[in-house]
Amino acid sequence: MTATAQQLEFIKESIKSIPDYPKPGILFRDVTSLLEDPQAYAATIALFVERYRDQGITKVVGTEARGFLFGAPVALALGVGFVPVRKPGKLPRATFSESYELEYGTDALELHKDAIKPGDVVLVVDDLLATGGTIEATVKLIRRAGGEVKDAAFVINLFDLTGETRLKALGVNCYSLVNFPGH
Amino acid sequence: MTATAQQLEFIKESIKSIPDYPKPGILFRDVTSLLEDPQAYAATIALFVERYRDQGITKVVGTEARGFLFGAPVALALGVGFVPVRKPGKLPRATFSESYELEYGTDALELHKDAIKPGDVVLVVDDLLATGGTIEATVKLIRRAGGEVKDAAFVINLFDLTGETRLKALGVNCYSLVNFPGH
Repeated sequence: MTATAQQLEFIKESIKSIPDYPKPGILFRDVTSLLEDPQAYAATIALFVERYRDQGITKVVGTEARGFLFGAPVALALGVGFVPVRKPGKLPRATFSESYELEYGTDALELHKDAIKPGDVVLVVDDLLATGGTIEATVKLIRRAGGEVKDAAFVINLFDLTGETRLKALGVNCYSLVNFPGH
Repeated sequence: MTATAQQLEFIKESIKSIPDYPKPGILFRDVTSLLEDPQAYAATIALFVERYRDQGITKVVGTEARGFLFGAPVALALGVGFVPVRKPGKLPRATFSESYELEYGTDALELHKDAIKPGDVVLVVDDLLATGGTIEATVKLIRRAGGEVKDAAFVINLFDLTGETRLKALGVNCYSLVNFPGH
Protein backbone atom coordinates (compact mmCIF):
# COMPACT_ATOMS: atom_id res chain seq x y z
CA MET A 1 0.00 0.00 0.00
CA THR A 2 1.05 3.59 -0.53
CA ALA A 3 1.59 5.82 2.48
CA THR A 4 -1.78 7.46 1.85
CA ALA A 5 -3.61 4.13 1.50
CA GLN A 6 -2.07 3.07 4.83
CA GLN A 7 -3.19 6.32 6.45
CA LEU A 8 -6.72 5.88 5.09
CA GLU A 9 -6.89 2.31 6.38
CA PHE A 10 -5.66 3.51 9.78
CA ILE A 11 -8.33 6.23 9.83
CA LYS A 12 -11.03 3.76 8.80
CA GLU A 13 -10.04 1.32 11.54
CA SER A 14 -10.28 4.09 14.16
CA ILE A 15 -14.01 4.54 13.43
CA LYS A 16 -16.14 2.26 15.61
CA SER A 17 -19.32 0.74 14.17
CA ILE A 18 -22.21 0.67 16.65
CA PRO A 19 -25.04 -1.74 15.81
CA ASP A 20 -28.69 -0.70 16.22
CA TYR A 21 -27.99 3.01 16.84
CA PRO A 22 -29.93 5.28 16.80
CA LYS A 23 -32.52 2.59 16.04
CA PRO A 24 -32.65 -1.17 15.29
CA GLY A 25 -31.06 -2.14 11.98
CA ILE A 26 -28.81 0.93 11.67
CA LEU A 27 -25.04 0.40 11.90
CA PHE A 28 -23.81 3.78 13.16
CA ARG A 29 -20.31 4.98 12.18
CA ASP A 30 -18.91 6.66 15.28
CA VAL A 31 -16.31 9.36 14.63
CA THR A 32 -15.84 10.03 18.34
CA SER A 33 -13.52 7.01 18.45
CA LEU A 34 -11.43 8.67 15.71
CA LEU A 35 -11.23 11.90 17.76
CA GLU A 36 -10.05 9.94 20.79
CA ASP A 37 -7.08 8.59 18.81
CA PRO A 38 -4.67 11.51 18.38
CA GLN A 39 -2.75 9.85 15.51
CA ALA A 40 -5.92 9.09 13.54
CA TYR A 41 -7.36 12.55 14.18
CA ALA A 42 -4.14 14.30 13.15
CA ALA A 43 -3.85 12.12 10.01
CA THR A 44 -7.44 13.01 9.04
CA ILE A 45 -6.81 16.73 9.30
CA ALA A 46 -3.45 16.41 7.52
CA LEU A 47 -5.02 14.66 4.52
CA PHE A 48 -7.62 17.42 4.13
CA VAL A 49 -4.98 20.13 4.48
CA GLU A 50 -2.65 18.46 1.98
CA ARG A 51 -5.46 18.36 -0.59
CA TYR A 52 -6.73 21.92 -0.10
CA ARG A 53 -3.52 23.86 0.56
CA ASP A 54 -2.77 26.32 -2.29
CA GLN A 55 -6.26 25.85 -3.78
CA GLY A 56 -7.32 29.44 -3.16
CA ILE A 57 -9.70 28.58 -0.30
CA THR A 58 -10.63 31.76 1.63
CA LYS A 59 -13.12 30.30 4.18
CA VAL A 60 -13.97 26.92 5.68
CA VAL A 61 -17.59 26.25 6.64
CA GLY A 62 -18.58 23.50 9.08
CA THR A 63 -22.06 22.43 10.12
CA GLU A 64 -23.16 22.06 13.76
CA ALA A 65 -21.97 20.11 15.63
CA ARG A 66 -19.67 17.37 14.29
CA GLY A 67 -18.65 19.47 11.29
CA PHE A 68 -16.98 21.83 13.77
CA LEU A 69 -14.60 19.05 14.83
CA PHE A 70 -13.09 18.69 11.36
CA GLY A 71 -13.75 22.05 9.73
CA ALA A 72 -12.25 24.22 12.45
CA PRO A 73 -8.82 22.48 12.54
CA VAL A 74 -8.68 22.52 8.72
CA ALA A 75 -9.42 26.28 8.69
CA LEU A 76 -6.67 26.89 11.27
CA ALA A 77 -4.15 24.84 9.28
CA LEU A 78 -5.07 26.58 6.00
CA GLY A 79 -4.82 29.98 7.72
CA VAL A 80 -8.36 31.03 6.75
CA GLY A 81 -11.45 31.94 8.77
CA PHE A 82 -13.88 29.31 10.06
CA VAL A 83 -17.60 29.97 9.61
CA PRO A 84 -20.15 27.87 11.52
CA VAL A 85 -23.52 26.88 10.06
CA ARG A 86 -25.88 26.33 12.98
CA LYS A 87 -29.36 25.28 14.03
CA PRO A 88 -31.95 28.09 14.25
CA GLY A 89 -31.58 30.60 17.06
CA LYS A 90 -27.90 29.98 17.80
CA LEU A 91 -26.23 32.73 15.74
CA PRO A 92 -26.53 36.26 17.16
CA ARG A 93 -26.12 38.40 14.02
CA ALA A 94 -28.41 38.64 10.96
CA THR A 95 -28.69 35.25 9.24
CA PHE A 96 -29.82 33.49 6.08
CA SER A 97 -31.92 30.39 6.79
CA GLU A 98 -32.50 27.26 4.67
CA SER A 99 -34.79 24.39 5.56
CA TYR A 100 -34.09 20.77 4.71
CA GLU A 101 -36.07 17.56 4.97
CA LEU A 102 -35.71 15.00 7.71
CA GLU A 103 -37.14 11.49 7.71
CA TYR A 104 -40.16 13.01 9.46
CA GLY A 105 -40.66 16.77 9.06
CA THR A 106 -38.13 19.50 8.34
CA ASP A 107 -35.37 21.38 10.13
CA ALA A 108 -33.37 24.47 9.20
CA LEU A 109 -29.80 25.75 9.21
CA GLU A 110 -28.54 29.31 9.49
CA LEU A 111 -25.48 31.27 8.35
CA HIS A 112 -24.43 34.78 9.39
CA LYS A 113 -25.13 37.00 6.37
CA ASP A 114 -21.83 38.88 6.77
CA ALA A 115 -19.61 35.84 7.37
CA ILE A 116 -19.22 34.95 3.68
CA LYS A 117 -18.50 37.71 1.16
CA PRO A 118 -18.86 37.75 -2.62
CA GLY A 119 -15.60 36.35 -3.99
CA ASP A 120 -15.04 33.96 -1.07
CA VAL A 121 -13.95 30.50 -2.17
CA VAL A 122 -15.41 28.14 0.40
CA LEU A 123 -14.54 24.62 1.46
CA VAL A 124 -17.36 22.81 3.28
CA VAL A 125 -16.13 20.19 5.77
CA ASP A 126 -18.30 17.67 7.57
CA ASP A 127 -17.86 14.34 9.29
CA LEU A 128 -20.24 12.25 7.21
CA LEU A 129 -22.14 12.37 3.91
CA ALA A 130 -25.38 10.35 3.90
CA THR A 131 -28.33 11.70 1.87
CA GLY A 132 -26.73 15.17 1.69
CA GLY A 133 -29.70 17.18 2.99
CA THR A 134 -27.78 19.32 5.48
CA ILE A 135 -24.93 19.88 3.02
CA GLU A 136 -27.36 20.93 0.28
CA ALA A 137 -28.83 23.51 2.69
CA THR A 138 -25.29 24.62 3.59
CA VAL A 139 -24.32 25.07 -0.09
CA LYS A 140 -27.46 27.15 -0.68
CA LEU A 141 -26.64 29.36 2.31
CA ILE A 142 -23.09 29.99 1.09
CA ARG A 143 -24.32 30.85 -2.41
CA ARG A 144 -26.99 33.23 -1.05
CA ALA A 145 -24.18 35.09 0.73
CA GLY A 146 -22.26 35.31 -2.58
CA GLY A 147 -19.62 32.66 -1.92
CA GLU A 148 -18.39 30.00 -4.34
CA VAL A 149 -18.36 26.43 -3.00
CA LYS A 150 -15.05 24.88 -4.03
CA ASP A 151 -15.64 21.38 -2.67
CA ALA A 152 -17.42 19.49 0.10
CA ALA A 153 -15.02 17.27 2.06
CA PHE A 154 -16.09 14.44 4.35
CA VAL A 155 -14.35 11.96 6.60
CA ILE A 156 -16.97 9.31 5.74
CA ASN A 157 -19.12 8.81 2.65
CA LEU A 158 -22.04 6.38 3.04
CA PHE A 159 -21.63 5.73 -0.66
CA ASP A 160 -24.96 4.02 -1.34
CA LEU A 161 -27.10 6.81 0.13
CA THR A 162 -26.89 9.08 -2.96
CA GLY A 163 -25.49 12.16 -1.18
CA GLU A 164 -22.67 12.48 -3.71
CA THR A 165 -25.11 12.36 -6.65
CA ARG A 166 -27.28 15.00 -4.99
CA LEU A 167 -24.31 17.33 -4.46
CA LYS A 168 -22.98 16.75 -8.00
CA ALA A 169 -26.41 17.86 -9.30
CA LEU A 170 -25.80 21.12 -7.40
CA GLY A 171 -22.39 21.45 -9.07
CA VAL A 172 -20.47 20.57 -5.91
CA ASN A 173 -17.56 18.16 -6.04
CA CYS A 174 -17.26 15.72 -3.11
CA TYR A 175 -14.09 14.42 -1.53
CA SER A 176 -14.18 11.75 1.17
CA LEU A 177 -11.51 9.80 2.98
CA VAL A 178 -13.39 6.65 3.95
CA ASN A 179 -16.32 4.79 2.35
CA PHE A 180 -18.85 2.65 4.17
CA PRO A 181 -22.16 1.24 2.97
CA GLY A 182 -25.14 3.02 4.52
CA HIS A 183 -27.44 0.02 4.17
CA MET B 1 2.53 45.96 26.50
CA THR B 2 4.12 42.52 26.48
CA ALA B 3 3.64 40.30 23.45
CA THR B 4 1.03 38.30 25.35
CA ALA B 5 -0.88 41.40 26.48
CA GLN B 6 -0.96 42.56 22.86
CA GLN B 7 -2.22 39.14 21.72
CA LEU B 8 -4.93 39.16 24.38
CA GLU B 9 -6.06 42.65 23.37
CA PHE B 10 -6.13 41.52 19.74
CA ILE B 11 -8.24 38.48 20.67
CA LYS B 12 -10.60 40.61 22.77
CA GLU B 13 -11.12 43.08 19.93
CA SER B 14 -12.02 40.25 17.54
CA ILE B 15 -15.06 39.33 19.69
CA LYS B 16 -18.16 41.27 18.61
CA SER B 17 -20.67 42.40 21.24
CA ILE B 18 -24.30 42.01 20.14
CA PRO B 19 -26.85 44.05 22.11
CA ASP B 20 -30.19 42.53 23.17
CA TYR B 21 -29.32 38.94 22.21
CA PRO B 22 -30.78 36.44 22.96
CA LYS B 23 -33.18 38.79 24.79
CA PRO B 24 -33.47 42.50 25.64
CA GLY B 25 -30.84 43.77 28.05
CA ILE B 26 -28.27 41.02 27.34
CA LEU B 27 -25.01 42.02 25.64
CA PHE B 28 -23.96 38.82 23.87
CA ARG B 29 -20.23 38.12 23.34
CA ASP B 30 -19.96 36.54 19.90
CA VAL B 31 -17.00 34.22 19.38
CA THR B 32 -17.96 33.51 15.77
CA SER B 33 -16.29 36.81 14.82
CA LEU B 34 -13.09 35.51 16.45
CA LEU B 35 -13.31 32.27 14.42
CA GLU B 36 -13.68 34.29 11.20
CA ASP B 37 -10.38 36.07 11.88
CA PRO B 38 -7.64 33.50 11.24
CA GLN B 39 -4.97 35.47 13.14
CA ALA B 40 -7.17 35.87 16.23
CA TYR B 41 -8.28 32.23 16.14
CA ALA B 42 -4.71 30.95 15.74
CA ALA B 43 -3.49 33.23 18.56
CA THR B 44 -6.24 31.91 20.85
CA ILE B 45 -5.30 28.28 20.27
CA ALA B 46 -1.57 29.09 20.56
CA LEU B 47 -2.02 30.69 23.99
CA PHE B 48 -3.85 27.63 25.32
CA VAL B 49 -1.27 25.28 23.84
CA GLU B 50 1.63 27.31 25.26
CA ARG B 51 0.10 27.12 28.73
CA TYR B 52 -0.80 23.41 28.71
CA ARG B 53 2.11 21.89 26.79
CA ASP B 54 4.23 19.63 29.03
CA GLN B 55 1.61 19.67 31.80
CA GLY B 56 0.87 15.96 31.56
CA ILE B 57 -2.54 16.42 29.89
CA THR B 58 -3.76 13.10 28.41
CA LYS B 59 -7.22 14.15 27.11
CA VAL B 60 -9.02 17.36 26.17
CA VAL B 61 -12.78 17.53 26.76
CA GLY B 62 -15.01 20.08 25.00
CA THR B 63 -18.72 20.65 25.47
CA GLU B 64 -21.22 20.79 22.58
CA ALA B 65 -21.14 22.82 20.43
CA ARG B 66 -18.88 25.86 20.81
CA GLY B 67 -16.47 24.01 23.10
CA PHE B 68 -15.64 21.78 20.11
CA LEU B 69 -14.26 24.82 18.25
CA PHE B 70 -11.56 25.48 20.83
CA GLY B 71 -11.07 22.10 22.52
CA ALA B 72 -10.52 20.07 19.35
CA PRO B 73 -7.67 22.23 17.94
CA VAL B 74 -6.02 22.31 21.38
CA ALA B 75 -6.18 18.49 21.60
CA LEU B 76 -4.64 18.16 18.13
CA ALA B 77 -1.83 20.58 19.00
CA LEU B 78 -1.12 18.84 22.33
CA GLY B 79 -1.15 15.45 20.56
CA VAL B 80 -3.85 13.98 22.83
CA GLY B 81 -7.34 12.64 22.18
CA PHE B 82 -10.38 14.89 22.06
CA VAL B 83 -13.49 13.77 23.93
CA PRO B 84 -16.85 15.47 23.27
CA VAL B 85 -19.45 16.05 25.99
CA ARG B 86 -22.83 16.21 24.26
CA LYS B 87 -26.54 16.78 24.73
CA PRO B 88 -28.61 13.65 25.50
CA GLY B 89 -29.09 11.13 22.69
CA LYS B 90 -26.11 12.21 20.56
CA LEU B 91 -23.42 9.75 21.70
CA PRO B 92 -23.79 6.17 20.42
CA ARG B 93 -21.89 4.18 23.08
CA ALA B 94 -22.73 3.73 26.79
CA THR B 95 -22.73 7.10 28.57
CA PHE B 96 -22.71 8.79 31.96
CA SER B 97 -25.30 11.56 32.23
CA GLU B 98 -25.38 14.64 34.51
CA SER B 99 -28.19 17.17 34.69
CA TYR B 100 -27.69 20.88 35.29
CA GLU B 101 -30.00 23.79 35.95
CA LEU B 102 -31.11 26.26 33.35
CA GLU B 103 -32.87 29.55 34.04
CA TYR B 104 -36.13 27.61 33.60
CA GLY B 105 -35.93 23.84 34.06
CA THR B 106 -32.97 21.49 33.63
CA ASP B 107 -30.94 19.96 30.83
CA ALA B 108 -28.34 17.19 30.78
CA LEU B 109 -24.95 16.38 29.30
CA GLU B 110 -23.45 13.00 28.45
CA LEU B 111 -19.97 11.49 28.21
CA HIS B 112 -18.99 8.13 26.73
CA LYS B 113 -18.12 5.91 29.72
CA ASP B 114 -15.05 4.45 27.99
CA ALA B 115 -13.66 7.75 26.63
CA ILE B 116 -11.96 8.77 29.89
CA LYS B 117 -9.93 6.20 31.82
CA PRO B 118 -8.76 6.21 35.44
CA GLY B 119 -5.43 8.06 35.42
CA ASP B 120 -6.39 10.41 32.60
CA VAL B 121 -5.41 14.03 33.26
CA VAL B 122 -8.07 16.10 31.55
CA LEU B 123 -8.15 19.68 30.32
CA VAL B 124 -11.67 21.06 29.83
CA VAL B 125 -11.88 23.75 27.13
CA ASP B 126 -14.91 25.93 26.42
CA ASP B 127 -15.63 29.24 24.76
CA LEU B 128 -17.23 31.06 27.68
CA LEU B 129 -17.61 30.78 31.46
CA ALA B 130 -20.80 32.35 32.83
CA THR B 131 -22.49 30.69 35.83
CA GLY B 132 -20.52 27.47 35.26
CA GLY B 133 -23.48 25.05 35.18
CA THR B 134 -22.44 23.13 32.09
CA ILE B 135 -18.81 22.99 33.19
CA GLU B 136 -19.78 21.71 36.65
CA ALA B 137 -21.74 18.90 34.94
CA THR B 138 -18.75 18.23 32.67
CA VAL B 139 -16.35 18.01 35.64
CA LYS B 140 -18.69 15.56 37.40
CA LEU B 141 -18.86 13.39 34.25
CA ILE B 142 -15.06 13.26 33.94
CA ARG B 143 -14.67 12.34 37.62
CA ARG B 144 -17.32 9.60 37.37
CA ALA B 145 -15.25 8.07 34.55
CA GLY B 146 -12.15 8.16 36.81
CA GLY B 147 -10.38 11.15 35.25
CA GLU B 148 -8.62 13.99 37.03
CA VAL B 149 -9.59 17.50 35.89
CA LYS B 150 -6.39 19.49 35.57
CA ASP B 151 -7.92 22.86 34.64
CA ALA B 152 -10.87 24.42 32.87
CA ALA B 153 -9.78 26.88 30.17
CA PHE B 154 -12.04 29.49 28.57
CA VAL B 155 -11.67 32.11 25.89
CA ILE B 156 -14.04 34.42 27.79
CA ASN B 157 -14.82 34.72 31.51
CA LEU B 158 -17.93 36.73 32.38
CA PHE B 159 -16.17 37.55 35.63
CA ASP B 160 -19.13 38.83 37.66
CA LEU B 161 -21.31 35.73 37.09
CA THR B 162 -19.58 33.59 39.76
CA GLY B 163 -18.63 30.69 37.47
CA GLU B 164 -15.03 30.80 38.64
CA THR B 165 -16.08 30.68 42.33
CA ARG B 166 -18.36 27.74 41.62
CA LEU B 167 -15.59 25.79 39.87
CA LYS B 168 -13.05 26.65 42.60
CA ALA B 169 -15.50 25.14 45.12
CA LEU B 170 -15.27 21.92 43.07
CA GLY B 171 -11.46 22.08 43.22
CA VAL B 172 -11.10 23.11 39.58
CA ASN B 173 -8.71 25.88 38.56
CA CYS B 174 -9.93 28.26 35.84
CA TYR B 175 -7.86 29.92 33.16
CA SER B 176 -9.37 32.48 30.80
CA LEU B 177 -7.92 34.72 28.13
CA VAL B 178 -10.42 37.58 28.09
CA ASN B 179 -12.68 39.07 30.75
CA PHE B 180 -16.00 40.81 30.17
CA PRO B 181 -18.69 41.84 32.63
CA GLY B 182 -21.79 39.64 32.38
CA HIS B 183 -24.14 42.32 33.73
